[in-house]
Amino acid sequence: MKTNRYDVVVLGGGIGGYYCARSLAKGNKSVAIVENDLFGGTALRWGALPVKKVLDSFKGINKESKMVKETLINNWEDELNGLVKNIENSLLKDNIDIYYGNGEFLDSNRFRLDEVILEGDYFVIATGTEPSSIDGIHIDGKNIITHKEALNIKDLPDNIVILGGNVEGIEFAALYAELGVKVTLIEKEDCILPGNDYDLVEPIEKYLVEKGVKIIKGVGAKSAEVEGKGVNVLLDNGASIKGERCLVTLLRKPNFPRGIENTRIKTNKDKIITYENLLTDEKRIFAIGDINGILGMGHVAIQQGIQVANYILNNGPVKIFYDILPRAVFTLPEMAGVGKQEWELKRDNISYNVGISSFKDTWRGWAKGIQEGFVKVILNKDEVVLGVWMVGENVSEYVGLLKILIENKCTLGQILSSLVIHPSLNEAIVEALLQSRNKKVIK
Amino acid sequence: MKTNRYDVVVLGGGIGGYYCARSLAKGNKSVAIVENDLFGGTALRWGALPVKKVLDSFKGINKESKMVKETLINNWEDELNGLVKNIENSLLKDNIDIYYGNGEFLDSNRFRLDEVILEGDYFVIATGTEPSSIDGIHIDGKNIITHKEALNIKDLPDNIVILGGNVEGIEFAALYAELGVKVTLIEKEDCILPGNDYDLVEPIEKYLVEKGVKIIKGVGAKSAEVEGKGVNVLLDNGASIKGERCLVTLLRKPNFPRGIENTRIKTNKDKIITYENLLTDEKRIFAIGDINGILGMGHVAIQQGIQVANYILNNGPVKIFYDILPRAVFTLPEMAGVGKQEWELKRDNISYNVGISSFKDTWRGWAKGIQEGFVKVILNKDEVVLGVWMVGENVSEYVGLLKILIENKCTLGQILSSLVIHPSLNEAIVEALLQSRNKKVIK
Repeated sequence: MKTNRYDVVVLGGGIGGYYCARSLAKGNKSVAIVENDLFGGTALRWGALPVKKVLDSFKGINKESKMVKETLINNWEDELNGLVKNIENSLLKDNIDIYYGNGEFLDSNRFRLDEVILEGDYFVIATGTEPSSIDGIHIDGKNIITHKEALNIKDLPDNIVILGGNVEGIEFAALYAELGVKVTLIEKEDCILPGNDYDLVEPIEKYLVEKGVKIIKGVGAKSAEVEGKGVNVLLDNGASIKGERCLVTLLRKPNFPRGIENTRIKTNKDKIITYENLLTDEKRIFAIGDINGILGMGHVAIQQGIQVANYILNNGPVKIFYDILPRAVFTLPEMAGVGKQEWELKRDNISYNVGISSFKDTWRGWAKGIQEGFVKVILNKDEVVLGVWMVGENVSEYVGLLKILIENKCTLGQILSSLVIHPSLNEAIVEALLQSRNKKVIK
Repeated sequence: MKTNRYDVVVLGGGIGGYYCARSLAKGNKSVAIVENDLFGGTALRWGALPVKKVLDSFKGINKESKMVKETLINNWEDELNGLVKNIENSLLKDNIDIYYGNGEFLDSNRFRLDEVILEGDYFVIATGTEPSSIDGIHIDGKNIITHKEALNIKDLPDNIVILGGNVEGIEFAALYAELGVKVTLIEKEDCILPGNDYDLVEPIEKYLVEKGVKIIKGVGAKSAEVEGKGVNVLLDNGASIKGERCLVTLLRKPNFPRGIENTRIKTNKDKIITYENLLTDEKRIFAIGDINGILGMGHVAIQQGIQVANYILNNGPVKIFYDILPRAVFTLPEMAGVGKQEWELKRDNISYNVGISSFKDTWRGWAKGIQEGFVKVILNKDEVVLGVWMVGENVSEYVGLLKILIENKCTLGQILSSLVIHPSLNEAIVEALLQSRNKKVIK
């Protein structure tokens, strides 16, 4: 069997592997990337991106337009295949060798595919996770489905029960509601999008309710069973709900590469164990993205990919500040932001101050006729900015590099003495800071 | 005659006066604001904002839609009056007293209007500038016009000659071209938007040409004269161009408040002279915005207004870094950015490196089907970010608070180790930085 040698072999063509491989190739390393299905991973093929793709197409246009909806649905597969093709082209342009297949580690230097053995000085495992379920709910892929099947929007049910009101559940509720499906959402906490201040969640909840989504809070799902042509969902409180389909968004499980037992890599049931610089128990094998169980988010995988590449290329340490993550919920309106929220500061007994300003109160907002959306800034008692959060159309784009401002402990005074383009919606940040200025500190 | 006493009297209800008055009122000062026409000033009524309002309404929709165009034109006056009303309401909500009229200074403490004298501990002059012209061109307001008349879009000509290819001329060229008017643009420099790298200007030039704008570069206008029902524009090279109207965008002149000679304030023909903290030769009179001649831009006026208020309230020094201004050109696509451009670094013999990445190469860009636009980052040889510039739809919103990153001398490494939301177009900044990494430093 033929053996091909590379400086680095990347396993998995999701967003983490993609950025890692390209960063290495730009640094003149020889790189192979192995994908066992289609490039793009969860982020591109079954998660954030396709949901946004549908919702983006309903933005700024007549949302009821049947034509837009039909065109979208008819072109769906071609569009997704086009995205996958884009990734391949990007990788090829950077002289990365692409391998398809389901291989296995022979040892810590060799990974065998059907007709070739890949030998690597380094390996980067970026194989991600798969949707999973709980006891009492068996995913059959037809009636009881995960986000993978849910994205086959050519085959829409009349109604659906979604289990879980976290980001994934909420985004799919928005997606299905926009496509005209009747949605019931079950969330066991007392609020949807738990872990967020309610003023940020409220506009999204209102939007979902206006779109006809029925939200049941404070009660979990115990089981879901196929019954006839539909599903019967039994709740913790004894009630039951019938639906044509049931989308389960609760848990995930790791995709370990085969043959991992032929290396010294340690795992537990949820992840590959990693140490400093995202190295595993093998000195030349890294694990990035969802598979290392640190934080299952696309931008975390990207950063890990870029920084592991920089470690291999320049011995630069892998250093990511996970405590002030930027986050976004891609609904209509979107929610996005970075840093702390009020509930965390209350929990930690930290005094703080809040300023809120609406986009409709900026001059650009007036000119654009914007009705909804606002900026919320959170400062400590020394006027250091702890968090900037936004709700509104397209706000995931306005958060940009704000995280660095918070890392650098920027103050209200610094931001107010800087210049923001006029007229722009970003002036709402300035307004929110001005508004916070003469308010009493909370707690 | 009645005398009303205030802590601060603000003269002029443009964007600078608006932010200054409201910041003072939020600090519990008693504030009066005087406007001699309608609130909003150049920024809101005759400049940036209304142009953006028209162009915004052509974005993301069928640009050829006659209905949109007609609705826009029919509702134009109501819409603009609505914006003016918004300003009044904001001021009133903050308990600011509004006075209309053309008053005059009696001395350094008193400003007389028709029926009342306003006495102020402090005065802030924010009276702005007016369009002006050159010898050989007499503005008649009918055929030879300024941006004020040009914004009466209910009365559009078939064709227009625009003198000046700087931001104002270019934005009006875009506006008129979008509204179906045949535009000829005259710029005496060899390029439009002089003072910008050509790669940033090129997409805007291409857009204008595609919209049918005829651009004549490298030759200035000597004179413009009304001839019959049109205008005859004579160029420096002897050629002449006929147009139905001629829009002059060349020069501006200050609106000095009447009675300024009754104070110690010094002026020259272009401006009110200011010193530290934007104080004039009067210890309690400030001049902010276009009238002080520092930089005629809306966001500069806003900052000056906010900071002068902070000086009055808290004795905080007025400190604005004018050397790294954010700037935007509101065309379709927009151009926006902050910091240095290549031409400045070449001029100053500073070594630098450039990274460029297209929005269409981000995953969000793929999903949105974005075709145009890019990010350009400029770094020094130590990888400190000197400039971030963008061309594309809506990019004026993506520049946000980037100026602070440049003030703080953020490095490529810092930005690459931070997290940017995925999927977002802002990832193009990350891509551009990655792309710059292994390139040779220029010069």
